Amino acid sequence: MNAGKLISGEEVAKHNRRESCWIIIHGKVYDVTEFLDGGCRGSKIILKYAGKDATEEYEPIHPPDAITTNLPPEKHLGLVEPSTVEKVQVKITDEEKARQERVSNRPPLDEILNLHDFEAIARQTMPEKAWAYYSSAADDEITTRENHAAYHRIWFRPRILVDVTKVDSSTKILGYKSSMPVYITATALGKLGHPDGELNLTRAAAKHGVIQMIPTLASCSFDELVDAARPGQVQFLQLYVNKDRSITKRLVQHAEKRGIRGLFITVDAPQLGRREKDMRMKFEAEDPSEVSKAGSRGVDRSQGAARAISACRSFIDPGLNWKDLEWFKSITKMPLILKGVQRWEDALKAYDLGLAGVVLSNHGGRQLDFARSGVEVLVEVTEYLKRQRGLTFPNENFQLFVDGGVRRATDVIKAIALGATAVGIGRPFLYAFSSYGSEGVERALQILHDEFEMNMRLLGARSVADLAPDMVDASNIHSHLVAVPSDKLYESNYESMRHARLRDVKSKL
Amino acid sequence: MNAGKLISGEEVAKHNRRESCWIIIHGKVYDVTEFLDGGCRGSKIILKYAGKDATEEYEPIHPPDAITTNLPPEKHLGLVEPSTVEKVQVKITDEEKARQERVSNRPPLDEILNLHDFEAIARQTMPEKAWAYYSSAADDEITTRENHAAYHRIWFRPRILVDVTKVDSSTKILGYKSSMPVYITATALGKLGHPDGELNLTRAAAKHGVIQMIPTLASCSFDELVDAARPGQVQFLQLYVNKDRSITKRLVQHAEKRGIRGLFITVDAPQLGRREKDMRMKFEAEDPSEVSKAGSRGVDRSQGAARAISACRSFIDPGLNWKDLEWFKSITKMPLILKGVQRWEDALKAYDLGLAGVVLSNHGGRQLDFARSGVEVLVEVTEYLKRQRGLTFPNENFQLFVDGGVRRATDVIKAIALGATAVGIGRPFLYAFSSYGSEGVERALQILHDEFEMNMRLLGARSVADLAPDMVDASNIHSHLVAVPSDKLYESNYESMRHARLRDVKSKL
Amino acid sequence: MNAGKLISGEEVAKHNRRESCWIIIHGKVYDVTEFLDGGCRGSKIILKYAGKDATEEYEPIHPPDAITTNLPPEKHLGLVEPSTVEKVQVKITDEEKARQERVSNRPPLDEILNLHDFEAIARQTMPEKAWAYYSSAADDEITTRENHAAYHRIWFRPRILVDVTKVDSSTKILGYKSSMPVYITATALGKLGHPDGELNLTRAAAKHGVIQMIPTLASCSFDELVDAARPGQVQFLQLYVNKDRSITKRLVQHAEKRGIRGLFITVDAPQLGRREKDMRMKFEAEDPSEVSKAGSRGVDRSQGAARAISACRSFIDPGLNWKDLEWFKSITKMPLILKGVQRWEDALKAYDLGLAGVVLSNHGGRQLDFARSGVEVLVEVTEYLKRQRGLTFPNENFQLFVDGGVRRATDVIKAIALGATAVGIGRPFLYAFSSYGSEGVERALQILHDEFEMNMRLLGARSVADLAPDMVDASNIHSHLVAVPSDKLYESNYESMRHARLRDVKSKL
Amino acid sequence: MNAGKLISGEEVAKHNRRESCWIIIHGKVYDVTEFLDGGCRGSKIILKYAGKDATEEYEPIHPPDAITTNLPPEKHLGLVEPSTVEKVQVKITDEEKARQERVSNRPPLDEILNLHDFEAIARQTMPEKAWAYYSSAADDEITTRENHAAYHRIWFRPRILVDVTKVDSSTKILGYKSSMPVYITATALGKLGHPDGELNLTRAAAKHGVIQMIPTLASCSFDELVDAARPGQVQFLQLYVNKDRSITKRLVQHAEKRGIRGLFITVDAPQLGRREKDMRMKFEAEDPSEVSKAGSRGVDRSQGAARAISACRSFIDPGLNWKDLEWFKSITKMPLILKGVQRWEDALKAYDLGLAGVVLSNHGGRQLDFARSGVEVLVEVTEYLKRQRGLTFPNENFQLFVDGGVRRATDVIKAIALGATAVGIGRPFLYAFSSYGSEGVERALQILHDEFEMNMRLLGARSVADLAPDMVDASNIHSHLVAVPSDKLYESNYESMRHARLRDVKSKL
Repeated sequence: MNAGKLISGEEVAKHNRRESCWIIIHGKVYDVTEFLDGGCRGSKIILKYAGKDATEEYEPIHPPDAITTNLPPEKHLGLVEPSTVEKVQVKITDEEKARQERVSNRPPLDEILNLHDFEAIARQTMPEKAWAYYSSAADDEITTRENHAAYHRIWFRPRILVDVTKVDSSTKILGYKSSMPVYITATALGKLGHPDGELNLTRAAAKHGVIQMIPTLASCSFDELVDAARPGQVQFLQLYVNKDRSITKRLVQHAEKRGIRGLFITVDAPQLGRREKDMRMKFEAEDPSEVSKAGSRGVDRSQGAARAISACRSFIDPGLNWKDLEWFKSITKMPLILKGVQRWEDALKAYDLGLAGVVLSNHGGRQLDFARSGVEVLVEVTEYLKRQRGLTFPNENFQLFVDGGVRRATDVIKAIALGATAVGIGRPFLYAFSSYGSEGVERALQILHDEFEMNMRLLGARSVADLAPDMVDASNIHSHLVAVPSDKLYESNYESMRHARLRDVKSKL
Repeated sequence: MNAGKLISGEEVAKHNRRESCWIIIHGKVYDVTEFLDGGCRGSKIILKYAGKDATEEYEPIHPPDAITTNLPPEKHLGLVEPSTVEKVQVKITDEEKARQERVSNRPPLDEILNLHDFEAIARQTMPEKAWAYYSSAADDEITTRENHAAYHRIWFRPRILVDVTKVDSSTKILGYKSSMPVYITATALGKLGHPDGELNLTRAAAKHGVIQMIPTLASCSFDELVDAARPGQVQFLQLYVNKDRSITKRLVQHAEKRGIRGLFITVDAPQLGRREKDMRMKFEAEDPSEVSKAGSRGVDRSQGAARAISACRSFIDPGLNWKDLEWFKSITKMPLILKGVQRWEDALKAYDLGLAGVVLSNHGGRQLDFARSGVEVLVEVTEYLKRQRGLTFPNENFQLFVDGGVRRATDVIKAIALGATAVGIGRPFLYAFSSYGSEGVERALQILHDEFEMNMRLLGARSVADLAPDMVDASNIHSHLVAVPSDKLYESNYESMRHARLRDVKSKL
Repeated sequence: MNAGKLISGEEVAKHNRRESCWIIIHGKVYDVTEFLDGGCRGSKIILKYAGKDATEEYEPIHPPDAITTNLPPEKHLGLVEPSTVEKVQVKITDEEKARQERVSNRPPLDEILNLHDFEAIARQTMPEKAWAYYSSAADDEITTRENHAAYHRIWFRPRILVDVTKVDSSTKILGYKSSMPVYITATALGKLGHPDGELNLTRAAAKHGVIQMIPTLASCSFDELVDAARPGQVQFLQLYVNKDRSITKRLVQHAEKRGIRGLFITVDAPQLGRREKDMRMKFEAEDPSEVSKAGSRGVDRSQGAARAISACRSFIDPGLNWKDLEWFKSITKMPLILKGVQRWEDALKAYDLGLAGVVLSNHGGRQLDFARSGVEVLVEVTEYLKRQRGLTFPNENFQLFVDGGVRRATDVIKAIALGATAVGIGRPFLYAFSSYGSEGVERALQILHDEFEMNMRLLGARSVADLAPDMVDASNIHSHLVAVPSDKLYESNYESMRHARLRDVKSKL
Repeated sequence: MNAGKLISGEEVAKHNRRESCWIIIHGKVYDVTEFLDGGCRGSKIILKYAGKDATEEYEPIHPPDAITTNLPPEKHLGLVEPSTVEKVQVKITDEEKARQERVSNRPPLDEILNLHDFEAIARQTMPEKAWAYYSSAADDEITTRENHAAYHRIWFRPRILVDVTKVDSSTKILGYKSSMPVYITATALGKLGHPDGELNLTRAAAKHGVIQMIPTLASCSFDELVDAARPGQVQFLQLYVNKDRSITKRLVQHAEKRGIRGLFITVDAPQLGRREKDMRMKFEAEDPSEVSKAGSRGVDRSQGAARAISACRSFIDPGLNWKDLEWFKSITKMPLILKGVQRWEDALKAYDLGLAGVVLSNHGGRQLDFARSGVEVLVEVTEYLKRQRGLTFPNENFQLFVDGGVRRATDVIKAIALGATAVGIGRPFLYAFSSYGSEGVERALQILHDEFEMNMRLLGARSVADLAPDMVDASNIHSHLVAVPSDKLYESNYESMRHARLRDVKSKL
């Protein structure tokens, strides 16, 4: 460790090639040559910054402690002499100027009426790279849209003439109070959207009494996010299991020590999904002069932010399997929940193993395309677990969670009525803070809360416990329909009907 | 009470702030300061007129007697000296000029061929605020559109070779004759669309022999509407139950005394729904210079006409419940009907309590989004009430009504064939009088009547009683389908077929 | 009768008002004053030509003998002196010039590949009035489109490895040979589209060995069409039953004498349907200066060609009923077929009465909207008539026909496989002759024939009798689906995926 | 045979008419007069080149040996004197220049992310004629699109917590190893898209260890394609059975001798389907000055590439039937597979006859429109063959294949999980080599392979054998739905919701 040593920018600049590659991050110099050799897919990006200051590229993608944790001490070469570093000229493109203009034109927060609105504004005001990473999903993005559409196949059967002067939207999740049956689920790379990253979520969660699930892949470090919590604020941890179980063990036990109340083990990502919108973004962003000619297959550039960032770390172990769960029980007392269960058979196994619950999730449609939506799987799970183990839901001893596609409190209510304990929401909060920081997340939570209470009243429910299966009609939930390919010739001939028109616009039929 | 006192406009103008707020309505001066303190959401709008003449804003939203009824006599300060009131300069915007141009270009009434046409013309010629209030619905407006779409899942099974030289479309509703099984249902704020407000409906209903349901929230006063009725003209009353039951009792007993023949108690609105189109309109209409900056959360402006007008009055009691019905029976002999029943269980309860009927309605899709359509609930209700109480429909002793989404006489016929006694129609009549006054409503009723008789003939029905369940195929009524998210890549590649083309337009494939 | 008398144009011109109205048709002068008083809806149009030569307006709508048949002899005033008639200046509008330009640009016939193509060309080259009359249908035109769409819910189950070197598409209809199981069904007002009117159909039918059904409302006279038939050419007659049964009796017995082989009695039109596209056309066509002001209700102009032409004749008796059928049996030996049956109960009645068959039809969607398609009713009818009378189909003694929506030979094959004896096709032939005269109809029949034989081969059918129910999958025929109202906010936010693009079109995501 | 004789171009040029028609191909002179008389539909095209060098037109459509095989030796007139042939001036049109510009702008191969991308690029860069031939399908192209859409009605039920560190995508097809359960199915006229034609497929198949099925109608000769195979590379043959069985016998026995491992007999094409997009292309391509006038019916030009090339050869025998299969068994020991089975009854027959398997296929939607997709028929076949013969699938002794509509590895996986042994892919590889030659095909195979392995991991499958029926939900596979015709008037009135907007774009509602 040479933490204190001063190195000149000129010296760093010499190590700008594959054989010897130094970079500067937050004023410190690191020798990352070995990263390039480890079959790392991010190599190309690293090389781009060889001999230069990579802070700006590094920051939104890695927590501050990522490089120190992953690089052996001897590769920490020392401090750079600030005055000697050549400034990388960041040219502000016309597109970027236009974007900043749009940012300054975003509407005041109280004109945001629903969660869709955050997305509409974020889409126009976020950096394209961030939008591509957040919004993209697997393959043809069928599942990510089905996640939302599935809720539209569930309808309400409201009760009337219930005294709803007072309604109580609060509930308990794994025994911890939440102001409504909603939690902020784990999503990666918060700093792509806002410099404070996931801290925006921590702060807003505290104000609104909801629980945040900290992601393994946060842009902020785990400890930053725990430190930012208010006294008594409950946090969960989402876990990607590392091939090196000792790393995982350290992480889990550290989390437990820091007061994390539930461990959500991701089981739907033995390999990261292809997210082509994100991958395509990559090409657009690159300098065209570097682009190889048609047919060349030199460098594999076919990866978006998702893969670029994750590739070098073996943080996702494809070997993870049912037998590992005993080991987890042996290293922690935290309740264990599987995140990414997608069929009743696996929910049953989790129950039989004595886990605390499962999240019925397809990773926001970012992994396996044509995976069914969580809320559809929920219907299957409650049916079979009742049939095979006599369980009814919601169930304190084995809690079901659902995430993906939620945009309205009515979506949440549908899942709760069908037996879920709580519903995870992710992207909408990312869009909220990307445009408006933590105030955006607060507003989003407030909107959800207002919608939730209003809809409880309209349904005739005084408490979350009142949200029973008879309040919804989910009989069409399993109908995955594709219309017959449209009838092009017939339709091109059909002269559409039209209504009465003002006299001056009258012309041809 | 200082009814006769003369106050100068200058004096009024001094009371232009929260601490002391006077306004002028119809030449009378009122001290409305206390309205501002009562947590009223409309405060901001009131303040805008503090010290000024608010008649124009007030009129379309409140019946003439609203302020006298709600404000204690001592706040009625007297008359303003007309010459001393500063004229509020109403600047006619370019948009308004364009609108008035469109109004003068509206087609003659006989070019209006169906109810859709009224809506098409109204949309272009109404003030935007009125259009936003009338047309908006809850959340994503799924239910309001489903209300119409549901009728498109019902098909006909016509009988042939029935002598239909004479057909009779008349029927009885709660024992009172109607020229067809249609009534004008209650809708609020008629003056937003036309200066005569709901009087347009009263007059047209008289001419066509149909029944009008007077709304609690009419722009005209209740007595105006009753006074305008012809001798023998039947009227019903729609009731929002006030937290202060004495107000409700007074209203109900007054209605009974004035000859109202049926009391329709609204049960689907313990809280007013969010109608975002209406809310969004509000922002657009405001002076941009007043708009707070992003993030500011000072004043809650997120409300449309609906909430603005209703908030200060506790006219909707969320505590209303089944037990209140005994009380209603004790204060009136009018037949009691619940308006807004949405599942068979509640229809059964209403029957068991001895009520006269229920309206299967979701409030035009303006309350709970994803509530099912009335005509779908009708199928469920007739099935279960037959199964559990042996009832058949239509049934004189327990009448079923349906409203929402009706645009064609075929829609009405479908509901009648499935067991409804009559169908309520609301918005189409609003659009009709907004563009053409009471003549528009007459034309709308005439169109409905013509369509109704023609379709009876085509179905082989000589009377309303002939409209039996075997005449419709409603087997798809419960199919709420959402197509699988569309296949964007595949579709963008598919080269559409095209038909033969004229020779001169021939170019590329 | 003053057939020979010569009258000057000036004299005629004096009778140009309601009180005395003369018109000239084909050089003859008629006093039509009494037509104006008989409550006739066409009055307004007649008055337009009062005192003038009305031939051009009259011709496409009425057969030559219509006026002589309907007007008493004393109203036939004589011949006009040709030189004295003021020429009505027909100004050729720019629209008309553009249309004639399009006519001259229509593609050669061999570029017409399918029946859709005729419609595409006709739409651009026909007079608008004719297009509006032919293409329009009832109300929202749901049924007319469903007629076609229903075929798209039926799929094939082809047999392989059948020797199809020779295939035979011929069949028998009511015992008469047809080159394929298709007939030309009755449609009105052929001269709107082409000066030779229905003669185009007679000629082409002869060449291709198919049967023409002559319509009651042909533009050509019945005898013209029979005279034009080749020796041995089979023709049927479609019948609207007149209130005055003596007129009907005369017509039927005349038809039988002239060799008509089957009488198709229309039973789905006790009243003509509203066809709003046609009605709307009417307004557009009128001189705007004549158009009354908004609100005026003087003249009822709300009718298209359909109603205008039919109103004065009581040719459709709404009193027609089952009992009349015995009378029909007593006046003719022709086989009787009901045209317009729409449910199995009525097909069963027709069978029990000993009729020769029924046409499952909804009048091309021009009468009752939301009537089901003929091919759907076919499935129901064969099922119930088997269940209740043990019948199998096709059945020589009780033949089922279907019409409406057919555009492809595959449509025909589907109906035949499901039990129909033959399928009627109407509009496509109208479009064919409107653009290309009788050669167009021949080409249309040739295309159908080629498609028919090819598809028989591909299905593994050597003869029409081989087209059996196991060759189709009609399990979805009863699914009338309406997608849940689309999810506007979600969709407006969804960023569509896109495929790879050429390098120069690359820009923003 | 006058192979060596030298003929001058001038001499050839004299034989430029129907009575005597010589053409030059690859420097050789042929007398093709008799081709013109044989009722050949391609006559017109041949005549265009009478007396000229036809090589360029001939090449992409016929294998080099086609003319020598089909023309008797005495018609091989000799060699042309090269210097004496008049060069046919090929004028490069502006469209062609634009196309070549697009070709040079195609993106580098590594920007191609999925199989859709090849199609997108090919559509823009291929000659229109080739695109029309490859992309077109039968009638309304309903089936070709359904082929793809059907996969979208099948969803996944992934297993979690399976150790997928290693996954193996390889399998066996008819006993031969394949790197994944995918083969390159037979498609015709490869040289239309690329000068190397099907050789591109042979080469890429070798590199990726997959099997190519050689088409009867390849642009390259059979022997060329076999010669190009690497040692041990497995190839199958697709067979159109000739009317002249001796030709077929020769072809089959030659194939067996050359080492072909499986014979796929096409049974879904007793007649070539109508492919109207291809036919329409033909008209566009022709010299407008030659186009006959409307109504003329001289030459039958209504045929695309498909029919033009095939018509003169009786290569498809419509008389082929079940009895022929015994004959096939007698002439070859190769495994026999029927290609184009479309219902369970026929699959059962094939099994009972002892064949090696069937391909459930509708010829890429190019034959019978409204034939069901292969993957739908697969569900039916496995169900009935289990029920009637106790078979389970995949089954070594009777293998099921599926082709049509595949674009993603997930499509392949769905078919495999439902019981298929392998899936054939055709068009995507054509598009791949049309734009990028054999490197394109390699990239396509690589993408499929990557997708395949990734999705195995995400599904929890370690080997192809793990892909079991419980991993998919195909309960909607038989739902062929057509939405009710859209509600034009209602929709044109509906004011769409909209989300929050930036402040500067704010205008009217």
